[in-house]
Amino acid sequence: MLPDFFFEDFVPGEVKTFGSHTVTEEEIVAFAREFDPQPMHLDAAAGAASILGGLAASGWHTCAIMMRLICDSFLLRTASMGSPGITENSWLAPVRPGDTLTLRRTVIEARTSKSRPEMGLVTFRFELVRPDKAAVINQVAIVMIERRNPGARLA
Amino acid sequence: MLPDFFFEDFVPGEVKTFGSHTVTEEEIVAFAREFDPQPMHLDAAAGAASILGGLAASGWHTCAIMMRLICDSFLLRTASMGSPGITENSWLAPVRPGDTLTLRRTVIEARTSKSRPEMGLVTFRFELVRPDKAAVINQVAIVMIERRNPGARLA
Repeated sequence: MLPDFFFEDFVPGEVKTFGSHTVTEEEIVAFAREFDPQPMHLDAAAGAASILGGLAASGWHTCAIMMRLICDSFLLRTASMGSPGITENSWLAPVRPGDTLTLRRTVIEARTSKSRPEMGLVTFRFELVRPDKAAVINQVAIVMIERRNPGARLA
Repeated sequence: MLPDFFFEDFVPGEVKTFGSHTVTEEEIVAFAREFDPQPMHLDAAAGAASILGGLAASGWHTCAIMMRLICDSFLLRTASMGSPGITENSWLAPVRPGDTLTLRRTVIEARTSKSRPEMGLVTFRFELVRPDKAAVINQVAIVMIERRNPGARLA
């Protein structure tokens, strides 16, 4: 099955908003038990006593929730070759049970590779945004994406 | 219960190795199904056809595995106030079923805050290292940590 989106489809400056996910207390606690068992992610009283001011998701859980929205919104239909990493990740506000988070994607840069003409590197800013427009996470990620027709463009 | 470790216990230049976790195919697939359902994280044949060369963990799963080792090694016994974010995260090599990963922690910087004398900011490099000494992930994270006796130090 041919992907819907190739490197050429990501245009610097483009901002799009996709999907949403409503966070539950059960998933916050389940993730924390497995991967980040700090009391503020497990227990309401401990959360209230912490800098988070109440039970809040592990930052890594927030990253994972965002990745799922990235997958479902466009990445599973994109000729992605994977990601070498991220260059920035800020957790801006606590993520609490009941929060409904929407993905905002900004294309920062798109550059082709001379050594690997079959692909390009797209730099995205990914944010999760609450209904009150506040972003809870701000991340800059690099994704390797196949070019639609690299041969033609090398001519 | 008083934490074992405060801001003053993290000395720039210190490198320590802690704990280990052996990754299973079951956990790779379970994480991917929930958070990162790209075929290369779900299926051996799709992984083999990808740049990863075989079934490999989601990069976010690798981050989560590392966070659990960070918690169990020292963070749960540290007067941590949380993390504002990470400034670098590189996925250097695929993480495969059977890989045994050890946490390597380097203290890069430790600075106190004039505006918030009760805490300091510690910059860590966290890596997960295979038995062959190759690092599979390299991350730079900032953690807010309480000072042991801030009043005395303000005198």
